[in-house]
Amino acid sequence: MEFHQPARFPRGFRCASRNVGIKAEGNDLSLFVSDAPATAAAVFTRNHIVGAPVVVGRELIRAGRLRAVVVNSKVSNVGMGELGIRNARRMGEAAGHELEVPAAEVLMSSTGVIGVPLPIERIEQGIIGMGGALQDDPLVGALGIMTTDTHPKTISCSAGDSTITWVAKGAGMIDANMATMLVYIFTDARFEAVTLDRMLRDAVADSFNMLSVDTDTSTSDTCVLMANGLAGEVGEPEFSAALRSGCIRMTEILARDGEGATKLLRARVTGAKQAAEARIIAKSLINSPLIKTMAFGADPNVGRVLMAVGKCFECSVDAARMGVRINEVDVFSRGERLDFDEVRLRELLAGDPVEISVDLGLGDGSAIAYGCDLTHGYIEENAAYYSS
Amino acid sequence: MEFHQPARFPRGFRCASRNVGIKAEGNDLSLFVSDAPATAAAVFTRNHIVGAPVVVGRELIRAGRLRAVVVNSKVSNVGMGELGIRNARRMGEAAGHELEVPAAEVLMSSTGVIGVPLPIERIEQGIIGMGGALQDDPLVGALGIMTTDTHPKTISCSAGDSTITWVAKGAGMIDANMATMLVYIFTDARFEAVTLDRMLRDAVADSFNMLSVDTDTSTSDTCVLMANGLAGEVGEPEFSAALRSGCIRMTEILARDGEGATKLLRARVTGAKQAAEARIIAKSLINSPLIKTMAFGADPNVGRVLMAVGKCFECSVDAARMGVRINEVDVFSRGERLDFDEVRLRELLAGDPVEISVDLGLGDGSAIAYGCDLTHGYIEENAAYYSS
Repeated sequence: MEFHQPARFPRGFRCASRNVGIKAEGNDLSLFVSDAPATAAAVFTRNHIVGAPVVVGRELIRAGRLRAVVVNSKVSNVGMGELGIRNARRMGEAAGHELEVPAAEVLMSSTGVIGVPLPIERIEQGIIGMGGALQDDPLVGALGIMTTDTHPKTISCSAGDSTITWVAKGAGMIDANMATMLVYIFTDARFEAVTLDRMLRDAVADSFNMLSVDTDTSTSDTCVLMANGLAGEVGEPEFSAALRSGCIRMTEILARDGEGATKLLRARVTGAKQAAEARIIAKSLINSPLIKTMAFGADPNVGRVLMAVGKCFECSVDAARMGVRINEVDVFSRGERLDFDEVRLRELLAGDPVEISVDLGLGDGSAIAYGCDLTHGYIEENAAYYSS
Repeated sequence: MEFHQPARFPRGFRCASRNVGIKAEGNDLSLFVSDAPATAAAVFTRNHIVGAPVVVGRELIRAGRLRAVVVNSKVSNVGMGELGIRNARRMGEAAGHELEVPAAEVLMSSTGVIGVPLPIERIEQGIIGMGGALQDDPLVGALGIMTTDTHPKTISCSAGDSTITWVAKGAGMIDANMATMLVYIFTDARFEAVTLDRMLRDAVADSFNMLSVDTDTSTSDTCVLMANGLAGEVGEPEFSAALRSGCIRMTEILARDGEGATKLLRARVTGAKQAAEARIIAKSLINSPLIKTMAFGADPNVGRVLMAVGKCFECSVDAARMGVRINEVDVFSRGERLDFDEVRLRELLAGDPVEISVDLGLGDGSAIAYGCDLTHGYIEENAAYYSS
């Protein structure tokens, strides 16, 4: 899959962002809009405790239609009871009014601190005039939704005559406060909402749902796909493949920008009894603090890989049939550690990405999970979040 | 429960430790022995991939009798195939020969690096003469089994006329390489092996199994209880209560000495639909990197607590019925963040332990889990383990 450099929007999509006074500096509000009516699908966090925008968003998306997305950063609107719900609706209404589209077709997201009221008046005031500032550049929208991200995140690619564009933020499913993962996907391909929903769920299962920076699932994770049909019909297999590739690419971008991360950590599991077990083991590998610190320290450690596979109690694992490779070096086979070139492996581990491949030798289930190394930077960022 | 200061052995138990040349310096081999025959029970790691001593230990413990335990540190004897099994048996035989007890009644443990052959000749040579150096002080044995521990770990208490003594090592279930948790419990109370087994499993369920330093379950975790009966019968309720208290106390000692840890982190969950759900949620709280860094940074963050509870997908959680307290400060109740004295809470969080209490308001299931903060020290210790 080739991605456009720089990313561009599909026909009929535009965006704007500005500072409306929630953050001391930097843009804190973004609008994304389709000039034409669009079908839509979305997936949200599985956390039991969710932000008000997720509650309202689940309701809105049932109609399968969206015209716009409005997003603020810095305050997440989580844990605010009924007030939170009212403020989320007011945010959608303000955006709908400004963009002259029905409020029922505006999805809202908020990302940032929990338990602080959304400064809704600032948002309502600040949004006025943004409709006149809409631009054709997805980077503008990406700027307004950043929290602990070190850079704005956009990619795009072609699928037949259509374009697919991803605008995202987040250092993973990393934090209930700041680093919520938000992903907005726009296309001018034409699909029914039910088809979008199916394609989106399939793509997310292999990409964003296989991403973890620190095992901490946000209360606000949201991934939305809007299709305005301006490019006409596109074959589902072709579109689906492009959607999946872009979601995986964006997953890697998010992982690599995980809080404090210096590199992408990828775990590839094959030969599992079932795909579900491969997913569990791949996630166990990228979530293990000892593997994450190994990737940071570039210190090869076969034992940690064995440990992280073996601790998946609910999966079938047999060391006597297992093989392990770190980057391109085979380190373990059928119950025994292999002799390998430690100096060479140390060099490979110092690079980016670090890839751990485990073949369980039991079946044909496979999965890939995406994460990052665990560094001093993570401790720095998270030991004193409010104070910083 | 009152614990003896310093810890002492029950009647008939002695130990020795020395350097047999596995570590460059410091004792690396310990023997624990009962002068009289003893009944015994043990629990081992649930990791699918286990050290050779665990394979052999599971076999030995079936007879319900032990006379001695031999433990080396620095090399774990994991991932070594058949050679590992042979070496584990040779280690038990060498100890049995030196102590003049049947090899079938000697349990062996190894803790340290994975995938390196056990230097069995050094162990066989070094063990000679240790039978003449046996002492009445459990601290001596604790010294020979340390890895990343910052101090040797022993406690003891009375139960009726009997004494119970714990000798342990480990910075949690933290590592497949170094910080395996090993706990040896000795008593002169008299119990059948089947009773010991039941009491041990009950005690471990609420103590060591609720301990996590970094979610990484070792391939070698072992907890053994030996009872030589020299103090005669002790009431089971009394003994069981003392056993449980001591296991919890040792759990807290291990948690507080977790790699890089500066403090104990305790999560207390009440009001869960079932005890099993309370355990899952309590573990989620102490394992969350964002809560662990919050404890380190002493920066109160209600959102992270909500996130860590809500991400337990398989449990019943309803924010509208939930209450959260951090140390002695109520911070969240029934769907909304409370106004609280942040300065006061910051002071409490700077202390040790940090305790997070969550009442789910749904039933009477409860649990307590034990962990520690996540600090720069953890990264330091684990980013370059072989190199250090």
